[in-house]
Amino acid sequence: MIVENSLDELKKREGAYRIIKNFIESDVESELYDLTGLSGGFIASEEEIDLLQTYIGPAVFEDKLQEVGVNHMGGEKIFALNRTSSGILASILALVSKGDSVVHFLKAHPAHPSIIRACNLVGAVYDEYIDLDQFKIKDNTKLVIITGSTMDHQVLDEESFKKVIERAHNKNIPVFVDDASGARLRTAIFNQKPACDLGADLSVTSTDKLMKGPRGGLMAGKEEYVNMVKAKSNEFGLEAQAPVILAMINALKDYNPQNLRDSISKKDELFMLLIKSFNMFEKTPTGVMVSKESLKKEVNSKRDKCNLSETDLCFLWSMILLKNENIITIPAVSMPGASTTIRFDLSSNDANKLEIKEIYEKISRSFEYLLEVCVDEDKSRKIIYNL
Amino acid sequence: MIVENSLDELKKREGAYRIIKNFIESDVESELYDLTGLSGGFIASEEEIDLLQTYIGPAVFEDKLQEVGVNHMGGEKIFALNRTSSGILASILALVSKGDSVVHFLKAHPAHPSIIRACNLVGAVYDEYIDLDQFKIKDNTKLVIITGSTMDHQVLDEESFKKVIERAHNKNIPVFVDDASGARLRTAIFNQKPACDLGADLSVTSTDKLMKGPRGGLMAGKEEYVNMVKAKSNEFGLEAQAPVILAMINALKDYNPQNLRDSISKKDELFMLLIKSFNMFEKTPTGVMVSKESLKKEVNSKRDKCNLSETDLCFLWSMILLKNENIITIPAVSMPGASTTIRFDLSSNDANKLEIKEIYEKISRSFEYLLEVCVDEDKSRKIIYNL
Repeated sequence: MIVENSLDELKKREGAYRIIKNFIESDVESELYDLTGLSGGFIASEEEIDLLQTYIGPAVFEDKLQEVGVNHMGGEKIFALNRTSSGILASILALVSKGDSVVHFLKAHPAHPSIIRACNLVGAVYDEYIDLDQFKIKDNTKLVIITGSTMDHQVLDEESFKKVIERAHNKNIPVFVDDASGARLRTAIFNQKPACDLGADLSVTSTDKLMKGPRGGLMAGKEEYVNMVKAKSNEFGLEAQAPVILAMINALKDYNPQNLRDSISKKDELFMLLIKSFNMFEKTPTGVMVSKESLKKEVNSKRDKCNLSETDLCFLWSMILLKNENIITIPAVSMPGASTTIRFDLSSNDANKLEIKEIYEKISRSFEYLLEVCVDEDKSRKIIYNL
Repeated sequence: MIVENSLDELKKREGAYRIIKNFIESDVESELYDLTGLSGGFIASEEEIDLLQTYIGPAVFEDKLQEVGVNHMGGEKIFALNRTSSGILASILALVSKGDSVVHFLKAHPAHPSIIRACNLVGAVYDEYIDLDQFKIKDNTKLVIITGSTMDHQVLDEESFKKVIERAHNKNIPVFVDDASGARLRTAIFNQKPACDLGADLSVTSTDKLMKGPRGGLMAGKEEYVNMVKAKSNEFGLEAQAPVILAMINALKDYNPQNLRDSISKKDELFMLLIKSFNMFEKTPTGVMVSKESLKKEVNSKRDKCNLSETDLCFLWSMILLKNENIITIPAVSMPGASTTIRFDLSSNDANKLEIKEIYEKISRSFEYLLEVCVDEDKSRKIIYNL
């Protein structure tokens, strides 16, 4: 085994860093292509950065956020949070007390852990449902939560969405929607309405997911509820700070659902090319991926003398993609313990800089090289650690 | 009464905005001077902003922060939080459970409310002391908190600081220091050591207080404890995001304690000039201030026909300072409910652009004009709302 523990993973990550750093610092014409789908963004002009340095800057950006935020999310009022998880915490702190019940409806388990953690913190009883027939709202329920799209991009259909809201409102219970990726996935790809337009009282989305914003949470909702969450956030320091708000505004202005839709057709095109040569690829909502098990199987079917482990193969391929093809995928740069699945996200900013055929060629060429070196453990080690 | 409620305060704030906006957008040579002491800052180069847009950017900045952070704060490891209040919440979540005791020592009441709120949230028993002779650490205490400098800049002496730490450590209880302004006020002005050098296990400071950083909390401490706080922060979204971390790094590099020390002597110089003509000024650690009561008294002693309320006088003077003298003070631009005390902070970035004599003249001239218009309520109203 080449990468055996967290320390090894850090060594691998540092090796990838050096490659990227050299790239950024060199004057080479060629570009790096970040296809992780995780890079988020920070769009800001020089004048805006100057304005950040004044007392008035933060207030100006908060005002501007209202307009672009409502345009994206619906609702009466917008509030920016440090993260979607902070928004979940603030909402539960504001609306739920010890002994109250919280009911959560989502397309598929598991729920995002921050919801359960926040309920535990206030001492609330937490129930989770994925089946509308079994969905029950206890009498002492103070908050109904809906997850628009799970972490694995499992999207709730609009009919169920509306029924859950209706049943909550029949009991006068507010509805909070965790719409982290959903605010865009549901609307741009599945033609659903923003959560507030479907009747949600509060909704929060992640501005770094499927758009070019910074990591952060954008909340919309009825003014009364937003004000309650805002007050709680300010008490505990959960609100987004001015530089993040500025970058949210520009990312929201930049957002175009067509880019997301395009990534779907590009994904299909790439997938069609890939399945002609490989058995290992699966589709994701905005790209394609190879799990460590599938990668090992594919390598074994083409090369019988490779003794590398599943995860070592992922790290090796990811480093080859970085070094030889200038493509950043998660396993090369990830922190210890992250998933080793190799994803190519076509909604990434950098995906637009490459033709689908180029991406296909980069994938094929790097996989050929992977087959070549994976039988040589020493050479594989040198590549993984960039020695 | 001219400014009667929150709505009026917002109207006043919007009027001030328009003045500032015109200033920023016009090509006039003259400058705005932000003497609020609250503007913080956001120092970042174009290349750094570009790096923010990559997957690797955040990781690069987190690494860089370690070095400059330890240099400023001491300790073994650094962690950046969304706010000092988030750092307090994360530490109490990480180290204290229901029924545990938390003991807080500070120079003077009141404590920062976020400490008490976080204790209430986890269900801890909270005790507060300002007298070392009465200071008691109960047996079930899990955390001892020291406030280095209170919100009113009341600074704890180093001897008491060390004694509290010693008594906590004798009982094997970790010590957390809320050093919001203290990390600079204590070291630069009072020649004390950083909290970690005095033995604290954790210490947090506000990067927008007495330095040119963004609003945020910079934590330092023993690695074991920092790791515990970091894990808790990531669970609830309390950590600082990359754009804020970048600006923290540059503000820490920019920080020079001499600037703070200079502001003290400048403050003394300004105060000496002011007391020759006025009775209303008081010193703050880094500037001078006038409370609403003192302002009303001073106006009454020089003009017997002024019927404006204390707060209206503050708003009026603050707007005159802005419009006629280009000086931003808090009452002109503040949110509803903020303090109406007029402070001139000489550690503000912009204070360096003015001679002390110029500041004195701007203050005198604007006060003369205040005396002139304050007897005319209609005219005062027009100035306050910038009509």
